[in-house]
Amino acid sequence: MTAEFRWTRKDLLSLYDLSAEEITYILDTAEEFKKVSERNVKKVPALRGKTVVNFFVEPSTRTRVSFELAEQRLSADIVNMTASTSSLTKGESLLDTVRNIEALQVDLLVMRHRATGAQNFIAQNVSCGVINAGDGAHSHPTQALLDMFTIREKKGRIKGLKVAIIGDILHSRVARSNMWGLLKLGADVVFAGPATLVPREFEEAGVKVCHRLEEALEGADVVNLLRIQHERQSAGFFPSINEYSRFFGINQENIKRLKPDTLIMHPGPINRDVELDSSVADGPNSVILEQVTNGLAVRMAVLFLVAGCGGKR
Amino acid sequence: MTAEFRWTRKDLLSLYDLSAEEITYILDTAEEFKKVSERNVKKVPALRGKTVVNFFVEPSTRTRVSFELAEQRLSADIVNMTASTSSLTKGESLLDTVRNIEALQVDLLVMRHRATGAQNFIAQNVSCGVINAGDGAHSHPTQALLDMFTIREKKGRIKGLKVAIIGDILHSRVARSNMWGLLKLGADVVFAGPATLVPREFEEAGVKVCHRLEEALEGADVVNLLRIQHERQSAGFFPSINEYSRFFGINQENIKRLKPDTLIMHPGPINRDVELDSSVADGPNSVILEQVTNGLAVRMAVLFLVAGCGGKR
Amino acid sequence: MTAEFRWTRKDLLSLYDLSAEEITYILDTAEEFKKVSERNVKKVPALRGKTVVNFFVEPSTRTRVSFELAEQRLSADIVNMTASTSSLTKGESLLDTVRNIEALQVDLLVMRHRATGAQNFIAQNVSCGVINAGDGAHSHPTQALLDMFTIREKKGRIKGLKVAIIGDILHSRVARSNMWGLLKLGADVVFAGPATLVPREFEEAGVKVCHRLEEALEGADVVNLLRIQHERQSAGFFPSINEYSRFFGINQENIKRLKPDTLIMHPGPINRDVELDSSVADGPNSVILEQVTNGLAVRMAVLFLVAGCGGKR
Repeated sequence: MTAEFRWTRKDLLSLYDLSAEEITYILDTAEEFKKVSERNVKKVPALRGKTVVNFFVEPSTRTRVSFELAEQRLSADIVNMTASTSSLTKGESLLDTVRNIEALQVDLLVMRHRATGAQNFIAQNVSCGVINAGDGAHSHPTQALLDMFTIREKKGRIKGLKVAIIGDILHSRVARSNMWGLLKLGADVVFAGPATLVPREFEEAGVKVCHRLEEALEGADVVNLLRIQHERQSAGFFPSINEYSRFFGINQENIKRLKPDTLIMHPGPINRDVELDSSVADGPNSVILEQVTNGLAVRMAVLFLVAGCGGKR
Repeated sequence: MTAEFRWTRKDLLSLYDLSAEEITYILDTAEEFKKVSERNVKKVPALRGKTVVNFFVEPSTRTRVSFELAEQRLSADIVNMTASTSSLTKGESLLDTVRNIEALQVDLLVMRHRATGAQNFIAQNVSCGVINAGDGAHSHPTQALLDMFTIREKKGRIKGLKVAIIGDILHSRVARSNMWGLLKLGADVVFAGPATLVPREFEEAGVKVCHRLEEALEGADVVNLLRIQHERQSAGFFPSINEYSRFFGINQENIKRLKPDTLIMHPGPINRDVELDSSVADGPNSVILEQVTNGLAVRMAVLFLVAGCGGKR
Repeated sequence: MTAEFRWTRKDLLSLYDLSAEEITYILDTAEEFKKVSERNVKKVPALRGKTVVNFFVEPSTRTRVSFELAEQRLSADIVNMTASTSSLTKGESLLDTVRNIEALQVDLLVMRHRATGAQNFIAQNVSCGVINAGDGAHSHPTQALLDMFTIREKKGRIKGLKVAIIGDILHSRVARSNMWGLLKLGADVVFAGPATLVPREFEEAGVKVCHRLEEALEGADVVNLLRIQHERQSAGFFPSINEYSRFFGINQENIKRLKPDTLIMHPGPINRDVELDSSVADGPNSVILEQVTNGLAVRMAVLFLVAGCGGKR
């Protein structure tokens, strides 16, 4: 990256939009911010006097708390809103709700929503910065960025690595966001899982699709296990959680197929003994809790960069 | 106003209690605070080390968020409480709950409650400052103050203006608070709406009551549209939302009767195409979002003045 | 206490664990912090840049708000979590949830939980400090510390005083915590209430158990009344609230048996005219609201001491 690189986006909506250079710039910035949380005083005044609204129309804890802590460590003023505590319950349109938030001279809106593209629509209609904290099955850029940060930190690079993402790809914004980011940075991405959950169509985007776990694990540098939602079972996507676990769970048996330094990742919360055995979750290859730690650094970086971009406002 | 004017009230309960001089003093102070939210660092240390409890026994988002941001921009310490997260659910009396809050050496209590007069009762029994964020159909002083601030900012004055307030006057604390404030500052106030919702009794307070929209719009400098609650329909106050909208909604047709610079106001959240057409809500006469922005400045002023009044405590 | 005494625990789980010297040290520290809340600027930078998570798996208002204000007055960064806003609802284990919180580089975890010993289990498995804000019927150390602080402040000492604790001892973490603390500091502790709620087994710990109110009140320096939960009535622990009140409530009649300077205490929220008559609750012997005020000072002290103990981390 050249020294004169400058972040110019007022929003972070999807890794699909970003260049490899922009993604790398976020990861580099996050490296600096990671040091802040390791200090005795875990705080910098970077966003002092700025207002951030965390608007989680779809409920969330992990992501919301991670953003909230990132904002506090940047010294921002913070307001939390949920769907139930918003005027949406009174029949107000989403755009009117957000315009009202904006009228309070808010600088950044961190937003999660069930509908694909909700944040894109909002970002086009408000002058404050919008950070996508997950929209439907579409995009969850800060999750993918923290996954990539963790890979780069552990492996020293992303280019040329084989990253296997296992599970319910169909409904996963984490999988899509990782795909866009990892491909741009030159990784080989493999999607694996039951055929009902991993359609062949993804191959058009440049990933390899396979329906047998062994194939995905073969030579993988990183194995990222997606959370299985219990409600998919009743919807008929697979016969039972038990059967899913038998064919696609990582256990002491099939972990032997992996290289000794393969990273085991999971966006959490994990279903112990479903996507992976407890011994694997807590084993030496697991970097699951480090992902959580890195999420904070990545979110501080994103908040900082987007807030600093006064250009479009 | 003379230079030696000094705010002396420990509470803000109702505009009914205030003199014209006091109301003007709040508006003047809000003008200063409006500048704070336009700065790069939207924050002053005015309430640093002071504790504010936002106690919303009746749920609210817009008003609560506006107060919370105002408090943050004054650097106060803030705790939010709702009825469901208070000991009220355990059968504790309202006064005991508030006395317990006061015992935590809280400086200001911002309170919303369904019962008319709840805040007056509380204010007489605690030494901390009490700010009424809405009690029943009675009083909502900061909403009226932000309406008056917006009128004064746009029109340069309030005295002599014709302000028409349209809709469900009967159940509206916004209408009553505007009435008290506007009359004190010399405006002509007209209440209009269906006869079931706009009883003649209001004339005793000095407003003009009319039941035809045309009469209210005639020569109006400001038209303030109140939100129609859908539940009023089933209670028989009017035949249908549709009929209400036909007789009392502002649309491209009847907006022509207005002077070109008439302000269209609404306390929000708006019901698009009920109280007003979408084109009117987003049109050049609408100052609805500016009201939201001004609400923050007005609330900063009220918090600042009430907190600074150590006299009675 | 010698000048060189130093706090060395990374957690505060139960007064059962503490020495008399440690308890006294907390009370002494709280005395210093009480002055902070009496200042005009009620804030010190002691925990600036430290992160505290309030994780209330069992709902609470009074204790949560008291901790939250204590944390704000120490300038900590604060995140609130409840069971419903945690991944526990997604089937994550308690330990995994807490390990995820810890991975966000959190310094202190203030936790309430229905299960006896939950906090002990967690404290052994995380490196951050854990403060017990109540676990089941077991332990609620900060409540007992604020009771003891109030007694010491009013009476000048704890040693040799007769402290009567009246009510539902069986289900009360407040009673157990007071028992441990008061006995260590040399008080005589009497438990009184219906035989169903005050089993003789407590005598093994060194308290006196009695089932007639008169005996408990006789010569008492302090009378601490526990809240009666209405659901105990349907569970058959006593015939009716009315009957409980007649036999174990403090009223204008039996208060005459007390010494004129006996303190009337209650952890709140009080049931007026059940555990005590309104006239007693608001009378000159009552220090119930002072307990609330002192709770803040005690919690500031505990947060400060535990956060400062970097030794074990």
